[in-house]
Amino acid sequence: MLQKTNRLSLVEQVTAQLQERIETGAWAPGARIPAEPELMESLGVSRNTLREAIRALTHTGMLRTRQGDGTYVVSSSALAAALQNRVRKTEWLETLEVRRALEREAAILAARRRTEEELDVLRDCYEQCVRAVARQDKNTYLEWDMRFHQAVFAASRNALLMELYSNIAEGLRGSIESTMKLVSEALINKAHEQLLRAIERQDEAMAEAAVLRYIQDTQITLE
Amino acid sequence: MLQKTNRLSLVEQVTAQLQERIETGAWAPGARIPAEPELMESLGVSRNTLREAIRALTHTGMLRTRQGDGTYVVSSSALAAALQNRVRKTEWLETLEVRRALEREAAILAARRRTEEELDVLRDCYEQCVRAVARQDKNTYLEWDMRFHQAVFAASRNALLMELYSNIAEGLRGSIESTMKLVSEALINKAHEQLLRAIERQDEAMAEAAVLRYIQDTQITLE
Repeated sequence: MLQKTNRLSLVEQVTAQLQERIETGAWAPGARIPAEPELMESLGVSRNTLREAIRALTHTGMLRTRQGDGTYVVSSSALAAALQNRVRKTEWLETLEVRRALEREAAILAARRRTEEELDVLRDCYEQCVRAVARQDKNTYLEWDMRFHQAVFAASRNALLMELYSNIAEGLRGSIESTMKLVSEALINKAHEQLLRAIERQDEAMAEAAVLRYIQDTQITLE
Repeated sequence: MLQKTNRLSLVEQVTAQLQERIETGAWAPGARIPAEPELMESLGVSRNTLREAIRALTHTGMLRTRQGDGTYVVSSSALAAALQNRVRKTEWLETLEVRRALEREAAILAARRRTEEELDVLRDCYEQCVRAVARQDKNTYLEWDMRFHQAVFAASRNALLMELYSNIAEGLRGSIESTMKLVSEALINKAHEQLLRAIERQDEAMAEAAVLRYIQDTQITLE
């Protein structure tokens, strides 16, 4: 009985240790985790214990094992994995409504709290979006568009809001990429400019209005 | 090698089956799951496989095993567990900002989409809140207050919004319960009445204003 308790808590401890490496970013999404012998030695555990811990994290969606290759990090936290799984099963309009809720709040808070450094990042992301549209370079546009929005959330100083957004946006990304045309990206850029100016001027109402505008543009594009 | 693959997929399959019983509500939060021999027979698996599946769900926070008693459901989904864990590590003001984002959107959508049946539920919850304040019965108030907000989310017809809210509110509940006084509950009731009337009249702007008002009242109470 005592042995069983020890075994249970040992697997739990190892799982928690591996999870911590993922959540602190020591092991980032996309990275392959060290091989079994190395982990067995550094953690001081048996192969069975290590494998069970890895399977537990595979079940949460944080790790994925490829036969004959190795184990890779796929999500940065349990919340990230659960949210991405949930959004994959959700209609795009439902997801867009949740994005509107989060982005509107972030825009208000960013207008209130942004520093000069945060404004510089926003300006840079916006400029890169404008250049990408001018070059008709959709992939580069989508990359900087994502960074622009993340910079707004960073300026909001609300980490929970940002974490919810990042993982929900990730889930919506596929549908946006497949349907969006550069003509509507130019439209959305106008709303981005409005949002940037509003955050510069610390005008919360204007920041909100900009978000409502580009969410509506996105909705029209997806419909 | 083949055997290992089979074992991996068997544990995964059993974990997925147990998780499905939780997520569909067949096993609700608070319930004790059937004993090991019963589950081993109904799933057709060994004790070791079953135990590993249960440990995986324990790690996600969906199940909890009490030595000498049994295993209980603690969260209704992986997302619920991850969100509740995350909110427990979050400052209340940060959580309140996320709640404002979600509740504001839900109020707008509820005003737009509510049916007569949904209005009846809202009216009933509101009446129960009023009576609880009149009787100075704080616990009953908090119970009906929670149901009122959930009825707003139900009327919004956005299940993702509702799931995010329910689990985030659960995380904030402790701090509200410990600090709230009945004088501020009466204040918040006024904003609830405003929200109810706005949803009745399908007045989206008024519904938003009511949410901003009671979130501000809550913020003042917690400060």
